Amino acid sequence: MKTLAAQVITPEDLLKHWQGHRALTRRVIEAFPEKDFFEFSIGGMRTFSKMTDELLAIAVPGLKGIVNKEVKPFTEETEKLIFKAQYLEKWDEATAEINAYWEKLSIEDFNENFNLFGQYEFPVIQNVLYFVDNEVHHRGQGYVYLRALGIEPPFFWER
Amino acid sequence: MKTLAAQVITPEDLLKHWQGHRALTRRVIEAFPEKDFFEFSIGGMRTFSKMTDELLAIAVPGLKGIVNKEVKPFTEETEKLIFKAQYLEKWDEATAEINAYWEKLSIEDFNENFNLFGQYEFPVIQNVLYFVDNEVHHRGQGYVYLRALGIEPPFFWER
Repeated sequence: MKTLAAQVITPEDLLKHWQGHRALTRRVIEAFPEKDFFEFSIGGMRTFSKMTDELLAIAVPGLKGIVNKEVKPFTEETEKLIFKAQYLEKWDEATAEINAYWEKLSIEDFNENFNLFGQYEFPVIQNVLYFVDNEVHHRGQGYVYLRALGIEPPFFWER
Repeated sequence: MKTLAAQVITPEDLLKHWQGHRALTRRVIEAFPEKDFFEFSIGGMRTFSKMTDELLAIAVPGLKGIVNKEVKPFTEETEKLIFKAQYLEKWDEATAEINAYWEKLSIEDFNENFNLFGQYEFPVIQNVLYFVDNEVHHRGQGYVYLRALGIEPPFFWER
């Protein structure tokens, strides 16, 4: 028998937290000059467009897998995007899809294990926190790219 | 009257999540060559030792303020640390202090507003998530510094 322990954040607030971060990441994408978004990098790391590919390949596919209880391997976008505007469009589509899938999660789902991308077997709450952390991590790297390009990044508190 | 809405993460798991991130940040500090920890930076940003000063000035003082309901302005360490080993020692002391203060938080506290450093008036859960996010953000920047120095950073999943 399973009892629900006392917990500290509602699904609504967690979604708001995630989408707040996603709104900030969108502003970071916007801040990149078109060319640098696709070409600039430091120390052999990926460009910010490549990191954005990863973020897009995680958020909706990951959440969709959780909601549909369907384990699929991780794959990045096969359709290659070549303009920043296309990334921003994809980003906004993902924002709406995340909101829609989130609605389908019940409170109990967050404590169920899910094998994310067939690789990471953790409770759903850990998967969701990973989505956010991974985005914050790469966006922090985007901040360094912007600074190295002489561009002021958006304020971290702005969501 | 206030009802407790259904929530998705326990205080214990949130602490584990935070301390897991802190363990990874510790490994990032360790990965820096002594000199570069204090001197290397990109694009006019702070060195990783300066960022670590900020992380240390947020975690325990922030949590202590929350627990004692005592609003104090943000200040960074006045005692200047000059060796990486001192930072690691401070880090470990903070780890223990966080665990001790965390014990004093009740489940209701997480939804109470707290004016963090007299500047950010938000529910405690948002303050705590900010501690984590801010650390992940700066640590991501530390990853770029390490890569620019030709050093392989620790694996992001390692906690």
